[in-house]
Amino acid sequence: MNKNINIAIVGLGQVGIYLYNELKSKKKEIETKSGKIINIVAISAKNKNKKRRFKVDKKIFYSNPLNIFKEKKIDILFESIGQSDGISKKIVEYALKKKINVITPNKALISKHGDQLAELAEKNKVNLEFEASVAGGIPILRAIKEGLSTNKINKVYGILNGTTNYILSEMENSNESFDKVLKKAQKLGYAEPGNPKLDLNGFDAFAKIKILSALSFNTKISKNNCIMEGIENIKLQDIKIASQLGLRVKLLGISKIINNQLFETVHPCLVGKNTYIGNVNGVMNAVITEGKPVGESVLQGEGAGPGPTSSSLLSDLMSILRGDIKYPFGISSNKRNSIKPFNKDNYSNSLYLRFEVKDKQGVLSLITNRLAKFKISVKRIIQTPDKKNRRATIVIITHKTTEINAKNCLSIFKKNKGILKFPTIIRLYN
Amino acid sequence: MNKNINIAIVGLGQVGIYLYNELKSKKKEIETKSGKIINIVAISAKNKNKKRRFKVDKKIFYSNPLNIFKEKKIDILFESIGQSDGISKKIVEYALKKKINVITPNKALISKHGDQLAELAEKNKVNLEFEASVAGGIPILRAIKEGLSTNKINKVYGILNGTTNYILSEMENSNESFDKVLKKAQKLGYAEPGNPKLDLNGFDAFAKIKILSALSFNTKISKNNCIMEGIENIKLQDIKIASQLGLRVKLLGISKIINNQLFETVHPCLVGKNTYIGNVNGVMNAVITEGKPVGESVLQGEGAGPGPTSSSLLSDLMSILRGDIKYPFGISSNKRNSIKPFNKDNYSNSLYLRFEVKDKQGVLSLITNRLAKFKISVKRIIQTPDKKNRRATIVIITHKTTEINAKNCLSIFKKNKGILKFPTIIRLYN
Repeated sequence: MNKNINIAIVGLGQVGIYLYNELKSKKKEIETKSGKIINIVAISAKNKNKKRRFKVDKKIFYSNPLNIFKEKKIDILFESIGQSDGISKKIVEYALKKKINVITPNKALISKHGDQLAELAEKNKVNLEFEASVAGGIPILRAIKEGLSTNKINKVYGILNGTTNYILSEMENSNESFDKVLKKAQKLGYAEPGNPKLDLNGFDAFAKIKILSALSFNTKISKNNCIMEGIENIKLQDIKIASQLGLRVKLLGISKIINNQLFETVHPCLVGKNTYIGNVNGVMNAVITEGKPVGESVLQGEGAGPGPTSSSLLSDLMSILRGDIKYPFGISSNKRNSIKPFNKDNYSNSLYLRFEVKDKQGVLSLITNRLAKFKISVKRIIQTPDKKNRRATIVIITHKTTEINAKNCLSIFKKNKGILKFPTIIRLYN
Repeated sequence: MNKNINIAIVGLGQVGIYLYNELKSKKKEIETKSGKIINIVAISAKNKNKKRRFKVDKKIFYSNPLNIFKEKKIDILFESIGQSDGISKKIVEYALKKKINVITPNKALISKHGDQLAELAEKNKVNLEFEASVAGGIPILRAIKEGLSTNKINKVYGILNGTTNYILSEMENSNESFDKVLKKAQKLGYAEPGNPKLDLNGFDAFAKIKILSALSFNTKISKNNCIMEGIENIKLQDIKIASQLGLRVKLLGISKIINNQLFETVHPCLVGKNTYIGNVNGVMNAVITEGKPVGESVLQGEGAGPGPTSSSLLSDLMSILRGDIKYPFGISSNKRNSIKPFNKDNYSNSLYLRFEVKDKQGVLSLITNRLAKFKISVKRIIQTPDKKNRRATIVIITHKTTEINAKNCLSIFKKNKGILKFPTIIRLYN
């Protein structure tokens, strides 16, 4: 690698523009630490004249990123457009084929096409780094690939989405509804103003858990059809009841090996208020790995925002500047195996069930009989009457049962005179 | 670097023997991940025939480690004897001069001679790695050197000693005295059976904080005379009173930059029971960095024991096998500056003061007058009488004051009729 390194940044959204400024202001420090002189020789975005947080050099601006490679010699490309396909994929593929190192925070791209892109990088002997794609500023991918590299990891889980964690924390703190808090989050820049769906429905966390699995278990990125649930159906009422029970709702991403099969999921969980994970609040992220011989390792930090993301992008840059070619997923692609999926029907948890019922005789016994028929034991029942409206809320905490058994058991409550609506279900983390 | 890598392990104590076994059992996995074939060609310890956890190959055993280099070509040396000087220093120096890579968990050696050894490694273009010297299995050094490398870190602190953290947690849980719990810790292998002093008096944590400072701030290892206090004077009584106040005692190592000056310290702290650090219990370690732009990063994991230590030693090995020469402290030695020490007299904290006094008129006013004279405001007073013995315990939580002011203020209580002994002082973490 030459002493002078030419850099292109494609995509100048929140992350891209912050990175652009960081690279310029840290040029000297990067030279001190790596011995390399970096030069940003090209930037690209849709709109040249858009008002941005930092001023850009219009002389190096390209409206079509593909033209960059025709005119400039690039050593390292930062892709921060963020699409799973389209121009993001096209430009990353193009760069890798041209033996240009690529750094990206794009989890959608990596979780969908990471295997293919890693092979391409390996074939062309360049780096493809994506530390910033998972948990913002937390150096978790490097920790798994390097710091914990000879451990046998059998579980990785955590709070991987800052937006939803902020919303859940804020609902509890402010006693406000999901909709109100979502608006607050959008105002503060924690949730996308236009379309926050990918954060809220668990998709964002799920993309991250897929990347974490592949790295932790040295497997190909799974294409399994797993349980992915977001927080859209979590009501303030549930958060309050959980709080009375010493519990807190968290959206967890979980990946583990069960009987040599891979199980990945994202769903809201009830966790103890006095547990570690129950106290990761606000926009913080946390990733926990369980490995041998190291035991449990926890990494916590700010999970989103241009500052933390930029910290990870620059750690990727420093890694590349040190001059070593690394396998994108820690080991060679041809040594990463596919792994059989664990049957999600057999996923087993204690459940929190909230029924809204008519306050009349026989409804409670209807529910408990149904549970008994499916051998779902009850750990706790709390019935709260609403006399005025002749209704009642019944919350049941069950002992462990499988997904399929719970589904079959609860199916009859879709249409039943005494039950006002299908019960809310939240799994307890165990 | 050749495909075949010859390894020597010097020191076969708890860590060395575990490492020996790990290297043998993970030979294949290491080959898969690194492409290198490792061979343990020499081991050394004082006693060849001592009973050890795993059986050793006596054919490669050396009683004098220096003889290894006369007979074998070594690529990587593991030093796990653990002395700050003597044979540990001698053999590491010898190896580096002979262009042999060195990996060590020896915090005493690195915190004392790290600068000189790093220069030697750089001069001879080999690696000196010491991930395992701080916080066992937590990949904190690599996180600072690589994952967070372009951040401006201004503070690093945490729970760095598992023995003392276990003792403090267990005193609170079991309601037993320091001495009883220390014995329990020794039985469980958490504290040295012979001489647990270096854990208890804060020296072990202090060595680690010195290494963390040098890495976080890109400075030489400080030789400053700072505040180092252990937990030997923490009484069960203090833990109980703290608990009533919603506080918990933790031995913290703290290093920060104050007005461009370095302040390092290790001392017991009172922290909130519902804070993150207040919930790192038992033998767990945690390290927290505050940096820009990344914000706060937390790494938590098992801080001691051969398993976690071995995980870090193997991460160092993998780093070396990847073939890149790295600066031991992240940047070149000649770019690491010395930094002026912050005057410890000006260190400022709220204080917990426990006075044991005679239960007679005027004692409380004597104390409060003295505090007032030194402008130390009182936040809270709890007086608990012991009528039978005509004594009382007075606990005072003060507002912030400097070390020197507190020292001058409290000096008169060394000899005073009404005061039975010099007050116990615990700083509140802020």
